[in-house]
Amino acid sequence: MATRTKTSKSAAAAYKLANLPVDGRTRVVIERVTPELDGGRFPIKAVPGDTIPVEADIFLDGHDKLAARLLVKHADDPDWTEVPMVFINNDRWGAAFSVEKPGLYSYTFEAWVDHIASWQHEVSLKVAAGQRITSELKAGAVFADGMAEKAEGDDKPTLEWVAGLFREGAEEYNEIQYNEAIRVAQSEQFTDLLNRYPERQHASRFGRELIIDVDRPKAGFSTWYCLFPRSASQEPGRHGTFRDVEKLLPRIEAMGFDVLYLPPIHPIGQAFRKGKNNNVMSEPGEPGVPYGIGSELGGHTAIHPELGTLDDFKHLIAIAKNHGMEVAMDLAIQVSPDHPWAKDHPEWFKKRPDGTIQYAENPPKKYQDIYPVYFETDDWQSLWIEMKETMLTWASWGVRIIRVDNPHTKPFQFWEWLISEVKKVYPDLIFLAEAFTKPKVMQQLAKRGFAQSYTYFTWRNNKRELEEYMTELTQTEMKSYYRPNFWPTTHDINPYILQSGHEPQFLIRYLLAATLSSNYGIYGPSFELMEHLPFPGKEEYIDSEKYEIRHWDWNRTNRLTYLIGLVNRLRRENPALQTTNNLTFCRIDDDALMGYLKVTGNNRLLMVINTDAYNRRAAMIQVPTWQLGIADDQEYTVFDLLTGAYYTWKGQWNYVELDPYLLPMHLLKIEV
Amino acid sequence: MATRTKTSKSAAAAYKLANLPVDGRTRVVIERVTPELDGGRFPIKAVPGDTIPVEADIFLDGHDKLAARLLVKHADDPDWTEVPMVFINNDRWGAAFSVEKPGLYSYTFEAWVDHIASWQHEVSLKVAAGQRITSELKAGAVFADGMAEKAEGDDKPTLEWVAGLFREGAEEYNEIQYNEAIRVAQSEQFTDLLNRYPERQHASRFGRELIIDVDRPKAGFSTWYCLFPRSASQEPGRHGTFRDVEKLLPRIEAMGFDVLYLPPIHPIGQAFRKGKNNNVMSEPGEPGVPYGIGSELGGHTAIHPELGTLDDFKHLIAIAKNHGMEVAMDLAIQVSPDHPWAKDHPEWFKKRPDGTIQYAENPPKKYQDIYPVYFETDDWQSLWIEMKETMLTWASWGVRIIRVDNPHTKPFQFWEWLISEVKKVYPDLIFLAEAFTKPKVMQQLAKRGFAQSYTYFTWRNNKRELEEYMTELTQTEMKSYYRPNFWPTTHDINPYILQSGHEPQFLIRYLLAATLSSNYGIYGPSFELMEHLPFPGKEEYIDSEKYEIRHWDWNRTNRLTYLIGLVNRLRRENPALQTTNNLTFCRIDDDALMGYLKVTGNNRLLMVINTDAYNRRAAMIQVPTWQLGIADDQEYTVFDLLTGAYYTWKGQWNYVELDPYLLPMHLLKIEV
Repeated sequence: MATRTKTSKSAAAAYKLANLPVDGRTRVVIERVTPELDGGRFPIKAVPGDTIPVEADIFLDGHDKLAARLLVKHADDPDWTEVPMVFINNDRWGAAFSVEKPGLYSYTFEAWVDHIASWQHEVSLKVAAGQRITSELKAGAVFADGMAEKAEGDDKPTLEWVAGLFREGAEEYNEIQYNEAIRVAQSEQFTDLLNRYPERQHASRFGRELIIDVDRPKAGFSTWYCLFPRSASQEPGRHGTFRDVEKLLPRIEAMGFDVLYLPPIHPIGQAFRKGKNNNVMSEPGEPGVPYGIGSELGGHTAIHPELGTLDDFKHLIAIAKNHGMEVAMDLAIQVSPDHPWAKDHPEWFKKRPDGTIQYAENPPKKYQDIYPVYFETDDWQSLWIEMKETMLTWASWGVRIIRVDNPHTKPFQFWEWLISEVKKVYPDLIFLAEAFTKPKVMQQLAKRGFAQSYTYFTWRNNKRELEEYMTELTQTEMKSYYRPNFWPTTHDINPYILQSGHEPQFLIRYLLAATLSSNYGIYGPSFELMEHLPFPGKEEYIDSEKYEIRHWDWNRTNRLTYLIGLVNRLRRENPALQTTNNLTFCRIDDDALMGYLKVTGNNRLLMVINTDAYNRRAAMIQVPTWQLGIADDQEYTVFDLLTGAYYTWKGQWNYVELDPYLLPMHLLKIEV
Repeated sequence: MATRTKTSKSAAAAYKLANLPVDGRTRVVIERVTPELDGGRFPIKAVPGDTIPVEADIFLDGHDKLAARLLVKHADDPDWTEVPMVFINNDRWGAAFSVEKPGLYSYTFEAWVDHIASWQHEVSLKVAAGQRITSELKAGAVFADGMAEKAEGDDKPTLEWVAGLFREGAEEYNEIQYNEAIRVAQSEQFTDLLNRYPERQHASRFGRELIIDVDRPKAGFSTWYCLFPRSASQEPGRHGTFRDVEKLLPRIEAMGFDVLYLPPIHPIGQAFRKGKNNNVMSEPGEPGVPYGIGSELGGHTAIHPELGTLDDFKHLIAIAKNHGMEVAMDLAIQVSPDHPWAKDHPEWFKKRPDGTIQYAENPPKKYQDIYPVYFETDDWQSLWIEMKETMLTWASWGVRIIRVDNPHTKPFQFWEWLISEVKKVYPDLIFLAEAFTKPKVMQQLAKRGFAQSYTYFTWRNNKRELEEYMTELTQTEMKSYYRPNFWPTTHDINPYILQSGHEPQFLIRYLLAATLSSNYGIYGPSFELMEHLPFPGKEEYIDSEKYEIRHWDWNRTNRLTYLIGLVNRLRRENPALQTTNNLTFCRIDDDALMGYLKVTGNNRLLMVINTDAYNRRAAMIQVPTWQLGIADDQEYTVFDLLTGAYYTWKGQWNYVELDPYLLPMHLLKIEV
């Protein structure tokens, strides 16, 4: 006994020096997980109700069977929920789970050698080969004992009975019990028990816990309307107010929008104030640019007095809510030279060698009316904290959606910190990144926490461009973290394709935005009235309301306003339009006709659009009937939700014809 | 003063609670590094002299310029070597470095905002726009001061002069100095200085240090010859010995091989010994299977006495070295029931319910002559350490190459530990994985440390299969960690395609192996003599020397032996054949003619092979002239190194014709 202890101790000492792993019997490898962003550095995104399919390579040495579980939990849950994984092929395993509530979920994986399943497989092979398996039954009895120890309810006596059966069957003289034992050993019922009470010895755990950031549903499905409140007055010549905006709400609600986005509503600086059409000099009385934020009346937490008071703004938020709309504010981290920060926090700005604060430049252009905030300041901490306080102030007013102007000119780290910090207090905050810049920079902002992102949609016009871009957004890794928000125009962008003012072109751009992406927005009065005249040579508007107060005819209606109301209603009624990644393109051998199927549950929509705004196009479309469970010789009805027309189609290939002057799209509901 | 300190303290306290990052001014993102295996979990592989190209996405917010460095060091180096990275496109940066000596190298990345380059760019834009840049020159003087502080040698006074020049140029009255200052600010010389003394403030470091495992050159370029020493006797009927093997060395050396691989050379068990053609019963006097390792004479560290003594084996190793050959041993972790481990370490084996050790099975087949080692034993630590001791013993005999039999039936963790532990003592050890199993398992073994791996080449016969497989090996991530070793046949595999014995087929399979892969091997006497008769219905040999002693005619020569000697000489003389990933396939519009270019330095080889062993094929081949710097109308000479023929070719498309009965390959040296 003494000798044994001694040997054991010296062995333990030798093992210590041998760099051995904790458990050398852990045999299963888990790797190449999807989705997984940058090795787990960033969360993927979802909204409640989403089903998340995950996959991993899972395998081990030798010929044993393995079992694998996906482990999932919400940050509030004490325990992991386990989902059995299913073998796909080539050592690839998959599972899926739904996320039910906002917040952070974690997921990871566990897998182990399934000795009992290996034993069951071996039994089947030997029985099929006519071998007698008494030794195997004895081993099976030990497995069944182990399972019985863990079993609950009725399973316990069942497993104890099985163990007894296997033992009796292993006796030489007991042929009836033997036959019953080998039947039970190979039965589905025994397999079920085995999956309920697995051995799990020496299990492998995937090395990381991956995160899913589940936002509230609005992050995934939203319909934005942008307006400048100063242009909301119905009396020409009078500065609009929040009260004027309230009067417009019934009309905007009737058109089906649920986010009312306002460019900055703060006091506007006087120093170097810009005039009409971005003139470097303003005339006395010109209202200035809302992005030239801050005056002696206050900065990012003050309200421009000509719009009303803070109470008026809160009142607007409350009334908008009654109309089913949330008010989104605009965060532009830059100041006018008159902003309080310029006086109180000169350390937040870059100095020129003469000690003055450096205004914005894009050489050779100069923007004397704007001081950019200097994020490399030695006192970056106080700047960050001030920005957080600003967001908390806005949120305290009732704001839960924030559009961020040019986030790509501020450090990524800052956004990651800011968004995660303020969401700790207000988890329902949604940030939209207004970055029109290089693809990897736009992607990075989304990874760092922006719930929605502007896109290149504004410049993707022809069929090939659109199909390529949608494929990138919905089929690559981007689908798991980048939520597109499509805008045909914005108050900054009057795209060349719409500068003709051609009505069918406006319809096309609108219909694409509203049916390709579950999040989209319009630059309100301008777009619906098909404003199109550019500042000469630029993708900007002439007489832009960024630089002056506009008076819009808020009562005018036209084909586009009719269509907007209709399509927004269809978006509310059809779940297939409430998510973006459920997209499949259809084959149409025409370079302008584009068809795409969106399916959610049994809501099956087929959009066919003519991207040629000037010519009638006709072709055959291939309906992905294999995805819809429609047989090749089967007739079915497609119902055009835009026109009320019915068509009877058959099998895969069907005829479509679209005249852009009549209506450039079929929005077909497939009824099977 | 007191007040300030107080504010400062309370600010520091507030910052502490704010979850702020260490340095919020770190703006550059570094991600999507290639090569990087599983987030840095596994090293990539190289041999001395290899150039490793690396790339990463590197970008930052806003419009500033950035600078990036690749950092590299060998484990013995105290400091990092820095390699400037070059912008490629779309935020992708690249660099390359050479590894010079065996061992572990690390690499990582550092990048920072290059304010001086941003300043220089701004100066250029403003100067081009005719703006006066006095303020910028003052800022430039501060930059130059900072650079001068860090500068060495002549650069110091130069930068001090530059700083002075910028200051003088910034004065209102000094027009000559101003012009000189703006010239210098934009000069290449200033850019050079700036790259030598960068600011590097708030630099971003890539989060991981990635590893390169640099093996000695043999890992990348080796030519294997397998023989069973017991069949080495030149007298029929006598058991071969190590001394007999020594007599064969001049012939094997003349054929150009540099690794002599011997199947297990340990005592062979008697219990359940297999007979000729894997007969379950052996006749008295039959020699048994070398893979049935161990008898009362010893196990994995003993020598089968009929082959000679340990000293004889060491003598063989020494003599082989004189002939330019290394001896590779065969590690099969399994034992005969007579192996000492079965008695001394019964805990290393799995027991059946009756307490006996469980022999190997592949149900319904039984292998009573073999006990597999049970890696899930509670005493796995002592088993692992014994295996390590065994490897160290072999290495102490002078062995530095080990072929591992069926590594895929032992845990991955075990191999990773074993290989890294023994390489700490003998860094020049090379392990070859003999795994013919699922792709991800084979890949995993390579990731865990095997320097070379067997492949599916043995079953990749037609052009399409070969091009697809080579593309997978040389163009995907596998290229960075999986070193293929191509074998047309092995002592275990007589592939169907060679069972006809058709000579051109043997030539084709040989030429493919020897020119596609820098590591290849042949199952010596059998392959060169075109042995081909199968055990009926199987991909195995009839009368395999695994089960009996064969007597080979060691003096016979034929077309194949001639070609082997020639091609092995060409492999030694042409660096392009000494590496595998330098491969480019050429377009040939024929489904059997295959062309591939291999270029290393100015050694340019073009292989054209007819994979149809029965028909003459002719077609035009497209030479990748763009890769070779050959103009479309340029004439050049291709010299067939196999036949001595010269051809004058011109531009891209040239005629090739190959008759498999004459010679199925052109091995063309392109002379430009």
